[in-house]
Amino acid sequence: MSFDNSVGIVAPQRFCHDAPMLLKGGGRLPAFELAFETYGALNAARSNAVLVCHALSGSHHVAGIYADTPDSEGWWDNLVGPGKPLDTEKFFVVGVNNLGGCYGSTGPLSQNPESGKRYGADFPMVTVEDWVLSQSRLADHLGIDTWAAVIGGSLGGMQAIEWSLQFPERIRHVVAIASAPNLSAQNIAFNEVARQAILTDPDFHGGHYASRGLVPTRGLRLARMMGHITYLSDDQMNEKFGRQLRGGGLNFSYDIDFEIESYLRHQGDKFAGFFDANTYLLMTKALDYFDPARVCCGDLVAAFAPIRASFLVTSFSTDWRFSPARSRELVFALMQNRRHVAYAEIDCDAGHDSFLLDNAHYHSVLRAYLENIKL
Amino acid sequence: MSFDNSVGIVAPQRFCHDAPMLLKGGGRLPAFELAFETYGALNAARSNAVLVCHALSGSHHVAGIYADTPDSEGWWDNLVGPGKPLDTEKFFVVGVNNLGGCYGSTGPLSQNPESGKRYGADFPMVTVEDWVLSQSRLADHLGIDTWAAVIGGSLGGMQAIEWSLQFPERIRHVVAIASAPNLSAQNIAFNEVARQAILTDPDFHGGHYASRGLVPTRGLRLARMMGHITYLSDDQMNEKFGRQLRGGGLNFSYDIDFEIESYLRHQGDKFAGFFDANTYLLMTKALDYFDPARVCCGDLVAAFAPIRASFLVTSFSTDWRFSPARSRELVFALMQNRRHVAYAEIDCDAGHDSFLLDNAHYHSVLRAYLENIKL
Repeated sequence: MSFDNSVGIVAPQRFCHDAPMLLKGGGRLPAFELAFETYGALNAARSNAVLVCHALSGSHHVAGIYADTPDSEGWWDNLVGPGKPLDTEKFFVVGVNNLGGCYGSTGPLSQNPESGKRYGADFPMVTVEDWVLSQSRLADHLGIDTWAAVIGGSLGGMQAIEWSLQFPERIRHVVAIASAPNLSAQNIAFNEVARQAILTDPDFHGGHYASRGLVPTRGLRLARMMGHITYLSDDQMNEKFGRQLRGGGLNFSYDIDFEIESYLRHQGDKFAGFFDANTYLLMTKALDYFDPARVCCGDLVAAFAPIRASFLVTSFSTDWRFSPARSRELVFALMQNRRHVAYAEIDCDAGHDSFLLDNAHYHSVLRAYLENIKL
Repeated sequence: MSFDNSVGIVAPQRFCHDAPMLLKGGGRLPAFELAFETYGALNAARSNAVLVCHALSGSHHVAGIYADTPDSEGWWDNLVGPGKPLDTEKFFVVGVNNLGGCYGSTGPLSQNPESGKRYGADFPMVTVEDWVLSQSRLADHLGIDTWAAVIGGSLGGMQAIEWSLQFPERIRHVVAIASAPNLSAQNIAFNEVARQAILTDPDFHGGHYASRGLVPTRGLRLARMMGHITYLSDDQMNEKFGRQLRGGGLNFSYDIDFEIESYLRHQGDKFAGFFDANTYLLMTKALDYFDPARVCCGDLVAAFAPIRASFLVTSFSTDWRFSPARSRELVFALMQNRRHVAYAEIDCDAGHDSFLLDNAHYHSVLRAYLENIKL
């Protein structure tokens, strides 16, 4: 493979935070570690750092590949690299796995240093606010006082927004893509069905499945299958799969008849094979709980008053999970606070997952905004 | 309670078909029974009969109440009765539980007369075409040569359409509400996740749970919870539940935080307590398989050529499971065939479930159409 425009071979790093951290939900971590990666170089003024926040099932592996693992491109490799919209020749890019994750940061699969046992279901509930706090400790560690930008899609966008609220002086730009000021009732509903699928899986054992050598694969699989439906648009599904049959005719059984069934089962099986169920539960709760306007009785304009950062807000026309209307709520509240805000609604048929794709208009919007950031 | 405008106390009847029936999927029923109800009186000319077809989880109990069971109103009681839009002073209305159902018609919970054992998972796959064929036998039994109308919402609308295709001379009007010429990929996808929830429930036992005294409640519950999300609109969910918390604050646990979670769990638990899992599976497959244009390589205009009936097609603005666009496909294909077709797109925020509600515009459209049917 060619490494043109790729950050090339990368390796995860580890940040160890050896002091306790109190969490918003009342929990406490005696210590924690964060897995992270960096691409590009921090400049002398330490003014070119960009934090990439991941969504529900993402990780710190944003770009590049791992040595001897050719198919291991990072999840945003199309965006991050030399000459790419998030240009690693200009920016020092940091990807981090969130606390509670299952890709190397301290999470339910980790050992509790106080008990010597795996956390499992005892891992405390974490919030978007906690993630941002833990990311700020990583920034301290890296000598980054102020991020040039924090960027993320979906749940990642919520973290970028939260950065501008919790640390208004430490962030100059927010790029919030396919995001929202909070989840709608429908979104919470989908998350709740996914959680119930996992929680009621007989192999879940109250979250302590790992210590029994079990995995609640049935629940994870269902959660992911349902999730996939909501990440795609109806139009795109019709285009890509339509009513296409897998074999020559109908089976008149519960085997796979339609290609869409085959696709969903495959996605579900794959996901259940590597993702941790407790992490899935935690991440969905963090999504449900994020609601910066709550403390202001739902007034997002009032809630956004502390923000100093400039914003690029981007949404996708066919995204029904985080619809353009939700992004426009962000834009409105920012404008009412006289913040600099650019907004782009991208015409793309790929639904919520559009933020991961290499859409020309979308990438040119990101490129233009990021190019204009002064270091 | 008052019986004004109600058909009053009703009782289910039973039609026994003692000859075998071959099914479209290759299966065979040695005999079958259909549970049905009737309201109003068949006129001397036998020209005033209307068949009401039910959707996924409906039954033959369309209107009225059962003696000594005051809260037992039929599922379309707001529509069917003396002076109501489907006026039982004019029409002889027949409700029927579909073959494969779990409300009294022969289905997976019934005994196979040939083996003496409960069918369970051995109940053959049934299709919309099979339902219409079995309903035609009921019509024969009732002395109804021609239906004044066949009416249904959702999957019920598909049966009404199928009547006009399979028995063009036996039906004068089709009322197809919140229906579609076939399911979209997204719809099949939701059905598949629901089926997988049931099929992978350890209590399912390949469909032979009943003979073990078990019920796959976890799977049924998940299927219903997810279904409910898709029957409502995003707007309505936000209005009805929004981000309203059940208690005073967040729990930071997997207990119920939001009202929408409470609602979904309640709906799921209730449904899992009475509905049969094998029936749920059969009904979703019948939905997935319905596609009258398939035999014409997807050409719905060609497929609709045999139709002689006049149509009322109705859709709801916020129905994203059976969107107005799908109803307009029906209208277009009927118009190309120079059929009489009336179409109403009702502005209603209740999503797919709107067809069950007492919306004034919706009911006035139905009333006007049905009043104009000449007997």
